[in-house]
Amino acid sequence: MKPYDPGLHILASFSSTAGQLTDMAGCQAFFNQLIDQLDLCKVGEVYHTFPNQSFTAVIGLTESHLSIHTWPEHTLATFDIFLSNFQCDNTDKVRRIYTETMAYFDATAVHVQEISR
Amino acid sequence: MKPYDPGLHILASFSSTAGQLTDMAGCQAFFNQLIDQLDLCKVGEVYHTFPNQSFTAVIGLTESHLSIHTWPEHTLATFDIFLSNFQCDNTDKVRRIYTETMAYFDATAVHVQEISR
Repeated sequence: MKPYDPGLHILASFSSTAGQLTDMAGCQAFFNQLIDQLDLCKVGEVYHTFPNQSFTAVIGLTESHLSIHTWPEHTLATFDIFLSNFQCDNTDKVRRIYTETMAYFDATAVHVQEISR
Repeated sequence: MKPYDPGLHILASFSSTAGQLTDMAGCQAFFNQLIDQLDLCKVGEVYHTFPNQSFTAVIGLTESHLSIHTWPEHTLATFDIFLSNFQCDNTDKVRRIYTETMAYFDATAVHVQEISR
């Protein structure tokens, strides 16, 4: 058996003044398209919106998970993408999801951390 | 409006030789009990089991999220708990969830990181 091969987890806080921080349906469509494009396998998802139209999403993938929590009142979001390397090296996909998410939200990074785990 | 108050995120990798790494139903019952005990608010959950009985879970909370991915073939799991401080200071609850999860899995920490975000 091959040894455990750590996967990359990117944790980001970003600022955005775009309307995307209150557009849960738009974010869901964006994530779904990204997951399909990258041949990842979604096993379930949770999307929840709050009275101020901020939202929380966690998406379960066979490769691990993706999450976002938006704070439009602070023009902020916290975002996580973690993909294991069980079937193949998914490092580039983690970075691409991060980059495309930042572009979708027209975002400026506040704090970004990469963890191999 | 009060400024954004960062919440605590604990990311852990732990080892365990207990049967809990392949007991998805037991883990779900354990997490549900913990969420209730701590008066957290679950908004949805994803539980998915693999052919070798390893499993992946992501739980959406109004306070943020909880996730676990188990690797029984490597006697390992990766675990995350992140609670925002929007309504109140949830720092102690994050630490308690971490401690109780480690006890439930009879686990030994491999790598633990605390991030305020």
